[in-house]
Amino acid sequence: MRLPENPAHAFLPYPAVPVEHAAAGPLAGLSFAVKDLFDVAGYPTGGGNPLLLALSGIKTTTAPTVQKLLDAGARFIGKTHTDELAFSMNGRNAHFGTPVNGGAPDRIPGGSSSGSAAAVSNRLCDFALGSDTGGSVRAPASHCGLFGIRPTHGRISLDRCLDLSPSFDTCGFFARDSRTFGRVADVLLGADATPLPQRVRLLRPEDVWGLLGKEVAAALAPSLVRVETVAGAAQRCDAALDSFDKMYWSFRHLQGREAWMADGPFIERFAPPLGPGVAERFAWSKQVTDAQVDAATRFRGAYHRHLAELLGNDGVLVMPTMPDVAPLLAADESELEAYRNAAIKMLCLSGLAGFPQVTLPLASRLGAPLGISLLGPAGCDRSLLTLAAAIASS
Amino acid sequence: MRLPENPAHAFLPYPAVPVEHAAAGPLAGLSFAVKDLFDVAGYPTGGGNPLLLALSGIKTTTAPTVQKLLDAGARFIGKTHTDELAFSMNGRNAHFGTPVNGGAPDRIPGGSSSGSAAAVSNRLCDFALGSDTGGSVRAPASHCGLFGIRPTHGRISLDRCLDLSPSFDTCGFFARDSRTFGRVADVLLGADATPLPQRVRLLRPEDVWGLLGKEVAAALAPSLVRVETVAGAAQRCDAALDSFDKMYWSFRHLQGREAWMADGPFIERFAPPLGPGVAERFAWSKQVTDAQVDAATRFRGAYHRHLAELLGNDGVLVMPTMPDVAPLLAADESELEAYRNAAIKMLCLSGLAGFPQVTLPLASRLGAPLGISLLGPAGCDRSLLTLAAAIASS
Repeated sequence: MRLPENPAHAFLPYPAVPVEHAAAGPLAGLSFAVKDLFDVAGYPTGGGNPLLLALSGIKTTTAPTVQKLLDAGARFIGKTHTDELAFSMNGRNAHFGTPVNGGAPDRIPGGSSSGSAAAVSNRLCDFALGSDTGGSVRAPASHCGLFGIRPTHGRISLDRCLDLSPSFDTCGFFARDSRTFGRVADVLLGADATPLPQRVRLLRPEDVWGLLGKEVAAALAPSLVRVETVAGAAQRCDAALDSFDKMYWSFRHLQGREAWMADGPFIERFAPPLGPGVAERFAWSKQVTDAQVDAATRFRGAYHRHLAELLGNDGVLVMPTMPDVAPLLAADESELEAYRNAAIKMLCLSGLAGFPQVTLPLASRLGAPLGISLLGPAGCDRSLLTLAAAIASS
Repeated sequence: MRLPENPAHAFLPYPAVPVEHAAAGPLAGLSFAVKDLFDVAGYPTGGGNPLLLALSGIKTTTAPTVQKLLDAGARFIGKTHTDELAFSMNGRNAHFGTPVNGGAPDRIPGGSSSGSAAAVSNRLCDFALGSDTGGSVRAPASHCGLFGIRPTHGRISLDRCLDLSPSFDTCGFFARDSRTFGRVADVLLGADATPLPQRVRLLRPEDVWGLLGKEVAAALAPSLVRVETVAGAAQRCDAALDSFDKMYWSFRHLQGREAWMADGPFIERFAPPLGPGVAERFAWSKQVTDAQVDAATRFRGAYHRHLAELLGNDGVLVMPTMPDVAPLLAADESELEAYRNAAIKMLCLSGLAGFPQVTLPLASRLGAPLGISLLGPAGCDRSLLTLAAAIASS
């Protein structure tokens, strides 16, 4: 591998040490990139923070999920930038810069799996591994015009991957086309223990759609028709419990507490300079109270039951992935923070429930990509992708 | 090469790609490290700034000075941390952390060639390449207990090395012992065009010594005796012109102007977050005026003539390298800034004149190393090292 100079700002400029892959296998001929949270033997793991990179040393064991891809014949081409400590959703890393959104180069790529989305959307590789805690695959997939999945929590191993908030962290991936997306899914997901039936019960959560502005809803309308054409007319429903505020704060309190448990010791010991937004979020996370965590834990249980009941074994929510197309690169930090807070309200459904969500690059607005999502019950990941592929090819 | 995890925080954790060296040669059997300002084919060049690292790409050509070492049989083992954009003297990189001073682990290593000094002083390699603009080899050599040289300006190629202030930048190196130091010198310096005579005229600049506190002068006294035992009794002289303030400001105005010319475009275009001290120095550098630069340029010419006349072909100044042993790791930024300003007054002599200076690890104080320097006329570098070796073995 010899990459051109800093293509699309997607990859960390690591010297290329050989990473072996099987000569044949279901992913033979495909190249892939790995978010710099996962260990790859011969490489450091930086997690988007320069000091963590400096302290990393060279890893001697490859994360099992990466190894699975190599064993299936896929060719590793590099490690990709991540938002700092994965605790951001916009893709602007204050230290390492901003990967280029291949679907809308004047807009942020979204994050935290920013470099992986940049690598795939700029056609530097066929697919890429990311992680999704609160939207870190779904947001950049929607922003960059890619297929992306947040799988059922725990379904794809995150062993030898830096934690953000373990009870939310998932290993997801990106591809430009549904066929490649499906090939990777076959390797990483295998068959569903609880597949969706041939005929799903499509549900349209009015409350989630109600979070959108009119122009965004209009931009998504044709994609919604495509989904209904394949999956049948959607029934209306509501998907939130209590209120979106309750959902939002439950997610944030739990994510914050766990993020502080994961990264607080590093931050307190070394006081590394953290980028704008990230520093504030960690400071906020540190002071989340036990009472907030207890209340949020109870709510999460209730929400899981609520959504499990709503979906049963055949229900699939069709909903917007993000509140809008990606903000412009010139957006200031407060705009991004407002956008992030709006996004969390729709991203936290699958996070709180631990259910899989797939985003499809079917729409656009202002010349920029916009994703539409399918969210199903736990363990239906592979059938959700089959449905997504049928919709994409319709 | 497989380095242990982050030994002494000296090296950037780059994957090890093979860098070939000659099987035989004058440096066969020696291992070396390279400050991350120099290009090494297969590696990025980060210059101590994460964004510059991210933008670097993988270099395809090795800096000729590094290549010379490889051709002489030395084995490259890694790239070392540098202070950010080489514009600091303390060795604390706000982004990548602080390399460990092998001679005094509770103290700063000094910089900007901090990682190179850490690598050698912690016995991770035999010698290391650094650069010295205003003291970036001499300061860490003195702090870490190493031999270090700032050569005659222009004598060792800085091709494919990031600039700080080209009219001051030099390529220097570190070693633990004078024999290794001399072997490297033979390769990088070759023979002197204007060697020192067998019997030098040792000069002791009272004004420079007068910058020291009593305890520091007392700590250096036995080394001064060792120098005089080998080189003959020193004559007293003064080495500054006009005043140390004039010297200091002339150096800083010229260094600042050139540093802004070198790095200003990068800083203005990308607004990378810069660490404490470094940010302030660049902001200050930006507003250095043409009138200040003109005055400093005239003064530099006058100082060059002044020192050339003082030294002739046989004069060697014996003087302190630094105002004291390295500050403690716990020192705050304002202490370090004060220390740096005091240090520049004695470091700027060779810088303004473009003359070679060698520091010898002969003294100590408070259990920490302290160097003593020999400064000779332009082009006497190799004979200065021969003299240093004779003193070190006396």
